Amino acid sequence: MTEAVNIEMIEAAAERLAGNARRTPLLSSPFLDEIAGRRVLVKPECLQHTGSFKFRGAWSAVSALPEDRRARGVIAFSTGNHAQGVARAAQRHGIPAVIVMPADAPKLKIANTRAMGAEVVLYDRVAGEDREAIGTKLAQERGLTLIKPYDEPLVIAGQGTIGLEIAEQAAAEGVTGGDVLICCGGGGLTSGIALALEARAPGLRPRTVEPEGFDDTARSLAQGRIARNERTSGSLCDAILTPQPGNITFPIMSRLCGPGLVVTDEEAQRAMAAAFNRLKIVLEPGGAVALAAALFRPEAVSGDAVVVIASGGNVDAGVYRAALERFGETA
Amino acid sequence: MTEAVNIEMIEAAAERLAGNARRTPLLSSPFLDEIAGRRVLVKPECLQHTGSFKFRGAWSAVSALPEDRRARGVIAFSTGNHAQGVARAAQRHGIPAVIVMPADAPKLKIANTRAMGAEVVLYDRVAGEDREAIGTKLAQERGLTLIKPYDEPLVIAGQGTIGLEIAEQAAAEGVTGGDVLICCGGGGLTSGIALALEARAPGLRPRTVEPEGFDDTARSLAQGRIARNERTSGSLCDAILTPQPGNITFPIMSRLCGPGLVVTDEEAQRAMAAAFNRLKIVLEPGGAVALAAALFRPEAVSGDAVVVIASGGNVDAGVYRAALERFGETA
Repeated sequence: MTEAVNIEMIEAAAERLAGNARRTPLLSSPFLDEIAGRRVLVKPECLQHTGSFKFRGAWSAVSALPEDRRARGVIAFSTGNHAQGVARAAQRHGIPAVIVMPADAPKLKIANTRAMGAEVVLYDRVAGEDREAIGTKLAQERGLTLIKPYDEPLVIAGQGTIGLEIAEQAAAEGVTGGDVLICCGGGGLTSGIALALEARAPGLRPRTVEPEGFDDTARSLAQGRIARNERTSGSLCDAILTPQPGNITFPIMSRLCGPGLVVTDEEAQRAMAAAFNRLKIVLEPGGAVALAAALFRPEAVSGDAVVVIASGGNVDAGVYRAALERFGETA
Repeated sequence: MTEAVNIEMIEAAAERLAGNARRTPLLSSPFLDEIAGRRVLVKPECLQHTGSFKFRGAWSAVSALPEDRRARGVIAFSTGNHAQGVARAAQRHGIPAVIVMPADAPKLKIANTRAMGAEVVLYDRVAGEDREAIGTKLAQERGLTLIKPYDEPLVIAGQGTIGLEIAEQAAAEGVTGGDVLICCGGGGLTSGIALALEARAPGLRPRTVEPEGFDDTARSLAQGRIARNERTSGSLCDAILTPQPGNITFPIMSRLCGPGLVVTDEEAQRAMAAAFNRLKIVLEPGGAVALAAALFRPEAVSGDAVVVIASGGNVDAGVYRAALERFGETA
């Protein structure tokens, strides 16, 4: 079966993103290398526009729409980072955006999405309201184009541009083999990066990292078919709590990714504190799980060097202070 | 009188730094632009090796030493950021480093300096012990080369490489005029950037920013001769509390810089929180004063765009948490 995304689509996305998305650097610290027992190269997508990698996929999708369709506007459903990415991409294209968000999303994310000119529609995630149904209905009523958060080829292609950059930047550091650890929700980031690495850095192996209790991708990869999470809330890592891998993303991940890794919320907090002390970047819990795996599960990682995606930094100050209070002096 | 540093020395430093120091990006956020009332472009030197711009000057000085002299080792006196920069530069050159630090410097800075292989000698800043005398004595006893923190041409040339990067990066953003706000202690960073901008971006005007009560440079610039601070401690902004501008740096700043700006410790804390929320970078108080001036003293800044040096991020977790507790929800 042909996959819905390929390297040509990722390269086309990279052209649309050039000058619009940031090319993030690769950061490192000898202190992190020592903890991990190998070189750790961190790709800080928290420094991307809107504070997470999601801007890439959003820009990729919005910029690829036919002009007349784009002018009618876009809609997205999201725990927050995709929302901000789509809102900003729409704002910079001068088109309307409606964002369907869970009522329990971080306040900062809701406020930011509104401040970027989007109309925010809240739904109750805990009560089991179906965000996809809400989004689809609004899209039909208003003629908006739905920008799905991960199971959408143009979005996956946009996230894949990170893989193109890693291929170049890791090679410049002399790293052409080893694991690439990727914070994983629905798999858009992972599958995009996996396709880019397959084409441009085949010695680098993509691996998913998820929070304990929400390891749908790790279980899906292990059993070769899509598995669901029992819960949809209850982890600090709000950004990556999706019910199951996507129908488009899973076959790609299944073909290209190594075994999935799982870390605890506490390890994510420790990684946030380590990133504070050693890299001077702000990570949200869900954006810190890949770094947590590199630092605290070194026996499950292979290679002399590991590349880590630090996928986002949109965290409420109170959550961040709590992580620093626990681990800021020791991480 | 010929100045001790020129653009050729800065370009030579840039060659020595290539591949060894990070080329930091320019960050921005529409939220910061709105607060400031103009475009704000932030150069995050907190992402530099060792968490501050000081690594550039240290690498510049250490790498320029004749090999036989370098092999005997280096010594530095510093509140912490210069210490870490020199320690790391020495470690990567494989030579010994002795660092003379105030006993009340942030614990993280002392620990990091030791972890980078340097021998740390503590002195009592509050009791008025003279770090220069201590450093000079040790240098003579052991044959070490003293790397001064700011009043040293090779160090100034290293910091000036930031100005070369700004000239290119700001032009790429369409910005060729306006103020460049620089966190200022002894003036090494400011004078280096000022010389680079004079040669490569003459429309950009360097301006110093200092904490209230430690505005020696602003007063020196206003009266045309070096003025001293009455105190040497008592601000959150430990990284930039120097007694007075340097003998080499002041004439350069006097010739090239606009009027000095001054912000309160509270404004520095608010800027730290704004950088947390909007840029996802960790700033220490002294590294946040330039951003504070851009955000909270807009009437004192000129131009449609302002470039801000975010000079360092080496802050203890407790100090950071306190800033977020006060301003994390509102900045």
